Amino acid sequence: MAVQPVEKIILGIDPGTNVMGYGVIKVEDKKASIITMGVIDMRKEDDVYLKLGHIFQRVNGIIDAYLPDEMAIEAPFFGKNVQSMLKLGRAQGVAIAAAINHSVPITEYAPLKIKMAITGNGSASKEQVAGMLQRILHLDEKDMPKFLDATDALAAAYCHYLQMGRPDTGKKGPKSWKEFISSNPSKVSKRKTPTE
Amino acid sequence: MAVQPVEKIILGIDPGTNVMGYGVIKVEDKKASIITMGVIDMRKEDDVYLKLGHIFQRVNGIIDAYLPDEMAIEAPFFGKNVQSMLKLGRAQGVAIAAAINHSVPITEYAPLKIKMAITGNGSASKEQVAGMLQRILHLDEKDMPKFLDATDALAAAYCHYLQMGRPDTGKKGPKSWKEFISSNPSKVSKRKTPTE
Repeated sequence: MAVQPVEKIILGIDPGTNVMGYGVIKVEDKKASIITMGVIDMRKEDDVYLKLGHIFQRVNGIIDAYLPDEMAIEAPFFGKNVQSMLKLGRAQGVAIAAAINHSVPITEYAPLKIKMAITGNGSASKEQVAGMLQRILHLDEKDMPKFLDATDALAAAYCHYLQMGRPDTGKKGPKSWKEFISSNPSKVSKRKTPTE
Repeated sequence: MAVQPVEKIILGIDPGTNVMGYGVIKVEDKKASIITMGVIDMRKEDDVYLKLGHIFQRVNGIIDAYLPDEMAIEAPFFGKNVQSMLKLGRAQGVAIAAAINHSVPITEYAPLKIKMAITGNGSASKEQVAGMLQRILHLDEKDMPKFLDATDALAAAYCHYLQMGRPDTGKKGPKSWKEFISSNPSKVSKRKTPTE
């Protein structure tokens, strides 16, 4: 691997139907630092389409504002029930459409994979993930968000940054969805959006 | 109800992850006629993001081409398993994002509701739905599509047209998602996208 400075903006997204987290990091000279993080709060909106519209507009706005080169999504493949998975799928789909809209390549990471990458423990709590990110990225206590969805999204972006340096990841071609879901949920999946 | 000619274009969508159907009807002087129908075939594309990107671009393109006033989606709320529902939710989310992108209001109809509206039988087969649409809309045999996803989408649009004339539907305000999914799946749900 060539030893050269890499400059890249990574947007991490933790898609949810009520609160969606986002985190943006910058990679310079192979070091990552935070640009921003926050949440899109849809709890006061009870119409499902206004919620989805809110996600679409905000993710488009975040991409316009920070011009990420890549997007990392926390994407669980197994949930409690079919209804919650349909809701989650819609929220994911809308966030993905915003990335596609801007030709930003998307990589998905299972929650277990992200926790493992950040804390070394696949069953770490959200608080432990937040605490580790605080140390790694030198965040002040006052900068820590109220919602852990924001640090979860930041964790997805940081996990993606960690994957970038590994020679066996990051540039693989597309595989089938079948392979994708049948693979271990702790495994990273590498997918690209159309760039035409 | 005022007796006045209504002119409206309705886009029907049957979202799927491999084949997505669409149908466009025009309502003039309260009578519906077909403009077009077809499918978006993603079977040859095995990358999940290219599939979703394909849906986003094509639905955007269909909306640009036919300028629908409203969009009707066939939306089942219960599926076989959480993985298929997540996939379906993503496909729905991307199609919904395309409508939101154009400020086209969306209405969802459960498959049972659509079948009931078209054939009078909630458990009608796709072939029966297609056959009834052929008679109602005076479609030539040569115009009937190879994929029943197209007639299913046309059925969603026609079901929406039938609902328009009913005084108790069509203009209700938003309700919560909880109410939405807890209601009988055979019931119509009326949702509007943000129009700002």
